[in-house]
Parts: sequence; structure tokens; C-alpha cells
Amino acid sequence: MGGDDAPLIVIEGAHLARKKYPQAKFIVFGDENEIKPLVKNYPGLEGVMEVRHTLDRITSEDKPSTALRSGRNSSMRLAINAVGVGEAHCVVSAGNTGALMAIAKFVLKVLPGITRPAIATHLPTKVAGHSAVMLDLGANVECDPKNLLEFGVLVGVFSREILKIAEPRIGILNIGSESVKGHEVVKAASELFSAAAHLPGKYIGFIEGDDIGAGTVDVVVTDGFTGNVSLKTMEGTAKMLASLVKQSFQSSWLMKLGALLCLPGLLVALPAVLALKKRLDPRSYNGASLVGLKGLCIKSHGGTDAVGFAHAIGVAADMALIRFNEKVEQELEKIGMGAVAAPEVMAEEAAL
Amino acid sequence: MGGDDAPLIVIEGAHLARKKYPQAKFIVFGDENEIKPLVKNYPGLEGVMEVRHTLDRITSEDKPSTALRSGRNSSMRLAINAVGVGEAHCVVSAGNTGALMAIAKFVLKVLPGITRPAIATHLPTKVAGHSAVMLDLGANVECDPKNLLEFGVLVGVFSREILKIAEPRIGILNIGSESVKGHEVVKAASELFSAAAHLPGKYIGFIEGDDIGAGTVDVVVTDGFTGNVSLKTMEGTAKMLASLVKQSFQSSWLMKLGALLCLPGLLVALPAVLALKKRLDPRSYNGASLVGLKGLCIKSHGGTDAVGFAHAIGVAADMALIRFNEKVEQELEKIGMGAVAAPEVMAEEAAL
Repeated sequence: MGGDDAPLIVIEGAHLARKKYPQAKFIVFGDENEIKPLVKNYPGLEGVMEVRHTLDRITSEDKPSTALRSGRNSSMRLAINAVGVGEAHCVVSAGNTGALMAIAKFVLKVLPGITRPAIATHLPTKVAGHSAVMLDLGANVECDPKNLLEFGVLVGVFSREILKIAEPRIGILNIGSESVKGHEVVKAASELFSAAAHLPGKYIGFIEGDDIGAGTVDVVVTDGFTGNVSLKTMEGTAKMLASLVKQSFQSSWLMKLGALLCLPGLLVALPAVLALKKRLDPRSYNGASLVGLKGLCIKSHGGTDAVGFAHAIGVAADMALIRFNEKVEQELEKIGMGAVAAPEVMAEEAAL
Repeated sequence: MGGDDAPLIVIEGAHLARKKYPQAKFIVFGDENEIKPLVKNYPGLEGVMEVRHTLDRITSEDKPSTALRSGRNSSMRLAINAVGVGEAHCVVSAGNTGALMAIAKFVLKVLPGITRPAIATHLPTKVAGHSAVMLDLGANVECDPKNLLEFGVLVGVFSREILKIAEPRIGILNIGSESVKGHEVVKAASELFSAAAHLPGKYIGFIEGDDIGAGTVDVVVTDGFTGNVSLKTMEGTAKMLASLVKQSFQSSWLMKLGALLCLPGLLVALPAVLALKKRLDPRSYNGASLVGLKGLCIKSHGGTDAVGFAHAIGVAADMALIRFNEKVEQELEKIGMGAVAAPEVMAEEAAL
């Protein structure tokens, strides 16, 4: 079991998730001597949580290839196996992302019609009540145009079914909105999107980095390199701004006095201040989906707490409840990409 | 003369820039019937500003190739020509970026030892008084490892000479800090940086998107696609956060009352609030440098005002005063890249 504060946040997270998903049941993999005493602290959890003992684990330093080869009894591998054999609907892990993707791809296999699985997450925008979904966030450093089209289908379904956006607007991340801008991959991908009938959404063309926060689109399609840099830049900018505001309020006694004088105002406005805090809480966006696999797999941030982990469990539950992969398969059929399994995947399966 | 509010902001910007750079002289290219009456409004400006009349201009819709072919009497081309023949030390334009780069590359030529010019700008970080410089921001959609090494030298000099950082820390933007992360270009570039003796700075390895705002490095090296997406993501995130804060203060009468009650506190803290506002003012970061050319060329944001344009003039003046290109040539010599002109450039010159 991975993550900075596992297993505590995992157990408490499961307890918190049950409030919204009372029907949820859990299988937890890890050291039972550590886990079982924790479970007892949460009333009712014992009855819905099975603990399977293993001392093996994948560390955050393990390379994906090492994890795949030598981690056969690790908690991560056993949890993914449980999804593979149908014992669980979805795996949620706060462990090593590269290892999780490698093992999930190996055990669960890629969905027919999808060449490469990807990592997707939803992000806040300035539009009230609106989130955009972006992928890939790092699983595929380089992508071809068809990969990007597949990504659009995968999170078009996510946006429509999980975020309840009737006709998701899909954009490809680029360095300008004109069709001549960018490299060959995005240009060719844009042609594929424009030519595709029956997309789970509406292709609106190229978007730029500032369109993500502006809420111009519901789905942001990009390769894993660009997506990861963009996501991390977003996190870094938010942290920088918060730090600058904090620094100025601590910069002088006049500023500290000013902050003190603001207190009554902030108290009066407390509900709205709390609503803003909640809206920007990174825990509300925790739980990235590994999409394009035959089983459901959610990656929680390694440094999150129980509230964040509960949110990741919520994403897993939502995807299981709407039968995400069945919906994706239907969309792939509609768009004419479902019937043919991708050659890469067939070769991989043949090699097993 | 380009930009949303030209020529007014250009003339007023020159007037403002003279306060910090009283020795500056200007040659302005555009419609003299529009410009000359404006100049009269600013005392003392007439004596240091020469107006050269032209009605031709490059629009923001013109493709770089069109601008290069048919814009020979445009204000942009004439201004760049003035740098080319040594009449001006630097050109500052708020016009079409692609056209500016194409014309500047054609007229001014690339510095010996540099394969491709790039666009660089400095950005705020959470460290007090610290800016990071990032390049490329869009001139080179795809880059090879040697391009990235050249970028490092170019803005290493910028960071040291303009931002006065004694030994700039140089990082390559990637999706993880481990040496196995990323695509082949960044891996090979990292090896080039590690092997280079006498860099104008210290290569510290791979950085991630959140390191930019964290102030982990002084120089962020990346290709023009990733750099542009990261820069725009930064702008979009800052705008989103500002908008969310504004929205919550307008969301209910309680919140409005709260904001009102904060006023005395904000007034007491006014100096620090204003300092924060100034620190985050995008106008203080206006003026991107086209580096790697034989002449100096600064791109102002098209939507800026006179204060922002004055800042771009300031960047131009600073680069001219420290003789930026001479410093770059010295550094290229030190690193063993100066003597050999890049084949691409020689071929281009031979074709003229």
C-alpha cells in the first residue's frame, strides 16, 4: 500500500467515502498487523472491508519494469489482480504512478480499439461549477494523432457521464488557435477529430494553455509530456500566488495589523470564503483515472490525506457505477474504432 | 506600428521609459500624421524622437511568410532594418510575433554559433526579488538537444547580466527529475549540459512545471511548444484564481459586507497591498527578448499599456547597455561553440 501516510489515510479515506457511497465494499492489501487495528477505529468499516495480508510493496523509487518483474506479491499487484479477476470493480492506489500504469496495463490489458491507456484528471476553471478534464498527464511522453483521437473519446465519455456535461467541448492543446500552428502531430490529430463522426462531444479545435482555466473547453487533449508540464505549472502557479499573498501579509507590522482588521469582514463572509477554499482545495480534484484499460484504476496523489483519498475512491465508485468502460466501448463502436483491436495490443497479448 | 493601442501607448511608453533611461533616443516608424501630434503632448520627447513616415504595416493576421515577402515598407520591417544598419541598438515591437521573428531572422541574421533564435521572458517566482527566465516560448516548435544547449547559454547570460544573478541555476523542463524521465531530446540535452564546461551558470538537471513558480532555478530551458503551453497555463491559472476570488466576494450580500468590512484593514496595509499588486503586475514582466540574433529585438505584449511598453523599452535598453550579444559571443567562445557558424545559418546566408 503506497502513499506518504498509508495505511492510515487509506482506511480513514474508505470510512469517509462510505458516507457518499454506503454500498461500497473494500478489499485492502497490505500488512494486516498494521491495518486491522486501524479498521477497528471506524464503526461499521470492519463489516465491509476485507484485509488481505502481504508485506511486499512497490516503493516510489522502483522503476516500472522492476515493479512489473519483481513485485508479484506486492500490495499494488495483488490489488490490480483483484480487478483483473473480477473480485473488485476498481483499484485505487496512492503509490508509484509509473509502476501502477505498467502493472495495470500488463494485468488488465488495453481496451479493444485503444492503442495506449492514458492518465486523466479534472481541473477547476473560472466558470462556476465547471471542471475541465485533461489527458494525458504523463503516461505517454510521445503520442501519434490516433492516440490523441482515442484520448478524446475516452475523456469525452468521462466528461459526459461523470461530470454530466451533455455535449463536451473537446480541444487540442496547442500554441495558437489557427490551423497552421503547432507541430505535425497536433495538426494531423486536428484533422482526425474534424473528420470523426459521432464523437462523444464536439471538437472545437486548438486551444492554448490559458483556455484551461478559462473554461473554454470541457476536454483538453494533449500528449503526456505537455499535459504533465501544464498540470505541474498550474500547481506551481497556484502555490506561488498563495505564497506571495501570505508573504505580503507577513511583510510588515502595518500589513499584520491590516490583516487583523480584516478579520471581522472575513468572519461575516465566512460561508463564501469557505466555499472558495473548498473549490480550490486540491483534495477535491484528487483521483486521476487511468483510462483505456479493461479494468478501472484510479491514482491518488501520494501526499494527500484521508479527505483526498476518499475523493479518489469517489471517482472510482462513479466510474464503476456508470459502467465507464462499457460506455467507452459503445462510443468506440459508433466512431468505427471499436471492432479492430490495435495491432500493438494484439502483439503484446500474443507475447504473454 | 503594431499593438492594440498603438501608436498612443508606444509614444507614452517612450516618454515613461525616459525617466529611468534619460539618455535613450527613439526612431518611430508609422503614420506621421498620427504620431507627430501625439509626440507634442510629452515635453522633451520631440527632441529625442525621430518619426519616419510609412503607412504600410504588418497585421496580426499576416502569416510570417507573407509579412517577409510583401511587408518591405512596413513599420516593422523598417524598424528592424534600422537595427540591421546600426542606426538603432534595439527594436521594440508590440506587433505580430511570428512576423517579427521571421523578419528579424532574415534581416539581422543569427549569431555565429547559434542554430536557432528563441524567445525568452522573465517570470515571477515565490522567492522575494527573484525572477526566472524561460525560453523558448514559441519560436521553435521542435528542438534538438543542441538547440536547447544554445538556449541555456543565451539566457544564462541574460540571467547573469540583466537580472544580476552571479551563477544562474539552469534547469531543463521535464516531467520528472530522474534521468530516465522524458523523451530522447531532453535526455540528450541533459547529457550535453552536464558535459559542457564553462556554462554561464550551473546546470542543475531536470525540473518540473511547479519548479518555475517555486524559484528552484534561474533559467528554464525548454522547446517552444512546451514553453508556450507552460507560459499560457501560468497566465490562465493566475486569471482563474483572481476571477474565483472576485466571484466569491460578489457571490452574496454577506460576502459584499465582508469585503466592505475589510476595507479599513486593506487601507492600513495599503503599501504592502500595492507592493504585492506591483509584483504580480503582468506589465512588470512585459518585453520578451528574441535572443540569438545579431541585433537586439524585444517583443511587447500586444495588449499592454504605456507602462508595460515602457518596461519592454527598459529590457531593450538594459540589453543594449550591457552589450548582450558581445557577452553571448564571449560565452560561446568559452564553451567552444563560437568559432563554427551553424551550417543552417550559412546555407541561409548563401541563399540571399
